[in-house]
Amino acid sequence: MVAAPASLDTLCINSIRMLAVDAVNKSNSGHPGLPMGCAPMGYALWDKVLRHNPKNPQWFNRDRFVLSAGHGCMLLYALLHLTGYDSVTIEDIKQFRQWGARTPGHPETFETPGVEVTAGPLGAGISNAVGLAIAEAHLAAKFNKPDSKIVDHFTYVIMGDGCNQEGVSSEACSLAGHLKLGKLIALYDDNQITIDGRTDVSFTEDVLKRYEAYGWHVQHVPNGNTDVSAIATALETAKGVTDKPSIIKVSTTIGYGSPNKSDTAGIHGAPLGEEEASLTRQQLEWSYEPFEVPEEAYNQYRKAITRGNQLETEWNQNLANYRNKYPQESAEFERMLRGELPNGWEKDLPTYTAADKGLATRKHSQICLGALGPNLPELIGGSADLTHSNYTDIKGETGSFQPATPEKRYLHFGVREHAMAAILNGIAYHNSGLIPYGGTFLVFADYMRGSMRLSALSELGVIYVLTHDSIGVGEDGPTHQPIETIPSLRAMPNMLVFRPGDGNETSGAYKIAIQNRKRPSSLCLSRQGMVNQPNSSIEKVALGGYVLEDCEGTPELIFIGTGSELDLCVQAAKQLSNEGRKVRVVSMPCVELFEEQSDAYKQEVLPTSVRKRIVVEAAETFGWHKYIGLDGTSVTMSRFGASAPGGTCMEKFGFTVENVLSKANDLLN
Amino acid sequence: MVAAPASLDTLCINSIRMLAVDAVNKSNSGHPGLPMGCAPMGYALWDKVLRHNPKNPQWFNRDRFVLSAGHGCMLLYALLHLTGYDSVTIEDIKQFRQWGARTPGHPETFETPGVEVTAGPLGAGISNAVGLAIAEAHLAAKFNKPDSKIVDHFTYVIMGDGCNQEGVSSEACSLAGHLKLGKLIALYDDNQITIDGRTDVSFTEDVLKRYEAYGWHVQHVPNGNTDVSAIATALETAKGVTDKPSIIKVSTTIGYGSPNKSDTAGIHGAPLGEEEASLTRQQLEWSYEPFEVPEEAYNQYRKAITRGNQLETEWNQNLANYRNKYPQESAEFERMLRGELPNGWEKDLPTYTAADKGLATRKHSQICLGALGPNLPELIGGSADLTHSNYTDIKGETGSFQPATPEKRYLHFGVREHAMAAILNGIAYHNSGLIPYGGTFLVFADYMRGSMRLSALSELGVIYVLTHDSIGVGEDGPTHQPIETIPSLRAMPNMLVFRPGDGNETSGAYKIAIQNRKRPSSLCLSRQGMVNQPNSSIEKVALGGYVLEDCEGTPELIFIGTGSELDLCVQAAKQLSNEGRKVRVVSMPCVELFEEQSDAYKQEVLPTSVRKRIVVEAAETFGWHKYIGLDGTSVTMSRFGASAPGGTCMEKFGFTVENVLSKANDLLN
Repeated sequence: MVAAPASLDTLCINSIRMLAVDAVNKSNSGHPGLPMGCAPMGYALWDKVLRHNPKNPQWFNRDRFVLSAGHGCMLLYALLHLTGYDSVTIEDIKQFRQWGARTPGHPETFETPGVEVTAGPLGAGISNAVGLAIAEAHLAAKFNKPDSKIVDHFTYVIMGDGCNQEGVSSEACSLAGHLKLGKLIALYDDNQITIDGRTDVSFTEDVLKRYEAYGWHVQHVPNGNTDVSAIATALETAKGVTDKPSIIKVSTTIGYGSPNKSDTAGIHGAPLGEEEASLTRQQLEWSYEPFEVPEEAYNQYRKAITRGNQLETEWNQNLANYRNKYPQESAEFERMLRGELPNGWEKDLPTYTAADKGLATRKHSQICLGALGPNLPELIGGSADLTHSNYTDIKGETGSFQPATPEKRYLHFGVREHAMAAILNGIAYHNSGLIPYGGTFLVFADYMRGSMRLSALSELGVIYVLTHDSIGVGEDGPTHQPIETIPSLRAMPNMLVFRPGDGNETSGAYKIAIQNRKRPSSLCLSRQGMVNQPNSSIEKVALGGYVLEDCEGTPELIFIGTGSELDLCVQAAKQLSNEGRKVRVVSMPCVELFEEQSDAYKQEVLPTSVRKRIVVEAAETFGWHKYIGLDGTSVTMSRFGASAPGGTCMEKFGFTVENVLSKANDLLN
Repeated sequence: MVAAPASLDTLCINSIRMLAVDAVNKSNSGHPGLPMGCAPMGYALWDKVLRHNPKNPQWFNRDRFVLSAGHGCMLLYALLHLTGYDSVTIEDIKQFRQWGARTPGHPETFETPGVEVTAGPLGAGISNAVGLAIAEAHLAAKFNKPDSKIVDHFTYVIMGDGCNQEGVSSEACSLAGHLKLGKLIALYDDNQITIDGRTDVSFTEDVLKRYEAYGWHVQHVPNGNTDVSAIATALETAKGVTDKPSIIKVSTTIGYGSPNKSDTAGIHGAPLGEEEASLTRQQLEWSYEPFEVPEEAYNQYRKAITRGNQLETEWNQNLANYRNKYPQESAEFERMLRGELPNGWEKDLPTYTAADKGLATRKHSQICLGALGPNLPELIGGSADLTHSNYTDIKGETGSFQPATPEKRYLHFGVREHAMAAILNGIAYHNSGLIPYGGTFLVFADYMRGSMRLSALSELGVIYVLTHDSIGVGEDGPTHQPIETIPSLRAMPNMLVFRPGDGNETSGAYKIAIQNRKRPSSLCLSRQGMVNQPNSSIEKVALGGYVLEDCEGTPELIFIGTGSELDLCVQAAKQLSNEGRKVRVVSMPCVELFEEQSDAYKQEVLPTSVRKRIVVEAAETFGWHKYIGLDGTSVTMSRFGASAPGGTCMEKFGFTVENVLSKANDLLN
């Protein structure tokens, strides 16, 4: 088969293909197959449909494009380069996958302006896209006026077989269908090849029928290798379907153009090599040098710059009119876009004294959400079907984000933890000031850890409300009792893990979580009640760890406690003090923040000379030796829990004042 | 609506309902809604269809029953009790959810004989069931003869809306459809209620159409509340469809029988209370005391004992004939059922000397699989579409487990990590001697962590082959480079985490992983090559950590290394030795096994008096302070990685002999 004569379309498409071939060859690493197969899709979408402004990748009202099949990143880098983004020059493409380059091995938002979501872990991108579409629909419903649509864009996705096999995409796309997200449009690159070979070794389902079952509009373009107009037409049709998300299956040949490797797994993730690249040039009738792009192709692609400038100018005019007519709404809208929190957003966060009734920290969390809600309209979130256990509702508000009520900010994610996290990431990626939060049981953080990791890596200020944080869960038993979950989250870079020990600390955790728009927070919250401490405060939480109760002079022993076990430390310390012992209690609601304090402060709280230290936390000991060293001890967990009333579990596993005292006395004597 | 007059069927069904009501009321905790709604399904299946032997829950050829909606465990406990299992007496039911009871809050295999899978985390059970059905199909293909079917059972599941919303079930059921697992039959309890309220707040997809798209046979029973014969008929129809798995949607009313709480979220997970229990008794015309079961119901249910005894007797006769006619096959089959490994299974595990070429440990792993394969026919596994990266193939074998070739033992899981882990668990739950393993990139352990946790909790000897174990992955970048994954797995109770440092240690890790049939293993394996150490051995791996290189007398400083960083320690130690320093290198391929050694041994390897210790591992430091204490240091990671060639990443992040030496000298001087 010989490629069609070099029409302008063909030149444009083959420019993508050959940039991918050349970049992967030069770096001797990467995935040329997808960009070669998807080049026509990329061209049709970016040249004919996508509304974006290459000279301002952050223009708010741009269409969002998500390459869910992130390994095919050379497609995206080629498109960014060809349409004139400053972030990807031809030199950047030559530096593909090298140290410090803006063209890393998978698309990363924090490296490359124009990349909308960090992709690579399959299924994540399409699920993020559901979040982007939710954000758009919510803001549109909230701010648009009959005479002024200041929020009005589509979210486009290119996804592959891998994305469709991953469960997270099933969860997210089922929800997208339920929510009738009409401005979400996915192109499914059906190339019949995965790493293990032809998809028919494991994946023979009828994908479009499945999406129909979800409530999506479905189309099929049989010839995705050359039929640009069919792709463009399908995209226009999809845009016209406003009450359903759309998926367009586009049949392609992986590595199209390579005479010996196309349509094989061999071209998925390996360079073509010089010889096959040369044969590909022949087959595609491509007479240009490596990294050379025909002038005609540049000229065509870079019309995007003028178009984009015009689109943004029109939108700015639109916004100016909106500002005049709706000053209050525009003030809020523009404040959000600037990423500023409203004045006084935190003013109603509650504080407590020891006289106040002790509550479960999940209950304190609910009170915080109720206190923040009215002052923080950008707060948006929900629960993975555990609203009445996580207490994630915002007091005084009714209704939820549904097809007919997208202005509502409560999200029923269904029993879909992984999609929830990916959607929260998507809302954060929208970068429009929305502050996303989502709840589930702490133990089920395991279900969504893949996306929690992406929150941390991509610097997304998502707030995870993780209740039922220990064996204190009780009767539900070990499948529902986190043991290792807290340490496993603490091990994750850039994740703030809070385990507040009372009401003040819960308020403090929320304050920091809201402020940190570049860092996700995991709030680990109890099912059961605990007393309020006299010496805790919102402010002290910012230190991560602090002296809650102290003795005169240098302590003989230091207790370190978190969450529901903090008070065990306080009580044990009280008794030891009464016996004339010098002991200190350190509350450690956030290890990560404590680590970021000055060495002097850390020494003040935990002097190196005091080696008799006990940590008390109803979780795996793992990680705590950083503070107890070789000489300290712990009252922690080293096995899975058991099904019994929470109080019984606590007692049986040694979380009693008596046992804490016994361990302390072992150290002291 | 008044219940039908008390036919025997009704008595039997209401026995389940009222046991659930009474047990949940007594414990004041639990989920009565599902057992009340699913009682007719449970009765139809267990009384009319299921082939099992209450007096021998371990009878090999029994049908497997999986309650995927594990929170409804009172359904299962009631059925076990009513049909005469010794494991669940009426006293056990009265002890529902209490400390030490055999009736924990969710079904747990390790607590209650007759429970086939540990359930509760939604979606896990149905996915385990796919593994059970794979195990059955594989063994049947392998051992059955035209005149003798010694492996021949069905796998039945009851799943709810939650199970159908979870992505893991989508992955597993798509694969089940592809594999045409005709002996897998799921009853879908469609009660339209989840914890957040009616399912229409988040879940309005056409579930049966989705399953059709997966290639399943679908049926619908509109009246699941009373129509036992329709359920039984649908089950028989499903049994007749041998080339597709079956799903039967059964429309029910959650909490059926409760006049005020049925069909509400309020009955999902909370006791009815005395008053509503009393009203339910009236509505169901139930005149029995709490925990009282009518004699007629017992008599009917316990016919299962006679039936079961007869079924097992017949099967034993069948097996005896098989033993006579096919002594070789039966010897292997019965050895597997006894859980014995074959003689010499480990004899071909390779050993290496320092002269042997250094390879990546993923390559050593492939060699191990090739060495084990011929001697260990029960080894069965595959990869989540990364066969040629994980090197999970068994050398010399071709073909894979497909609809036409279920006798093959290689599994193409597709890009479905979570389902892979759940299916491996299912194969282990089958308890027929099969040793399941599965591969993916280490970083994607995050995708399947929910099921890895269940491997650990349920004591399943699954082997996870996790390659590309550090920033050494290189160009694929931070989305693909595990940093915190190894510590996060080490935090998990009952999980053996291996990071072998050469060929001998890889063989040693396999030896232990295969031997441990009650404990999962995570093998963390490098993408890149490393040298073979002169003093490593298969045997030493069993110690978890051991002295690899030593000095005379007490060392001044101890290096602790794992995996690809072990040799950095060795080289640094060599240089320091040359400078007259006394240093030791400890190889620590498995922290968990080291922890299990005697205190004397641990002291011998890491004497408390030697505080100058450096750990070198290209992963988060988290967890290592247990060995380096407050006085040691580390060459580890504290941030996410970057996209660049692997060697560059290693160098930039400080994994060089020079940097290790510099840190050592800081400690020494």
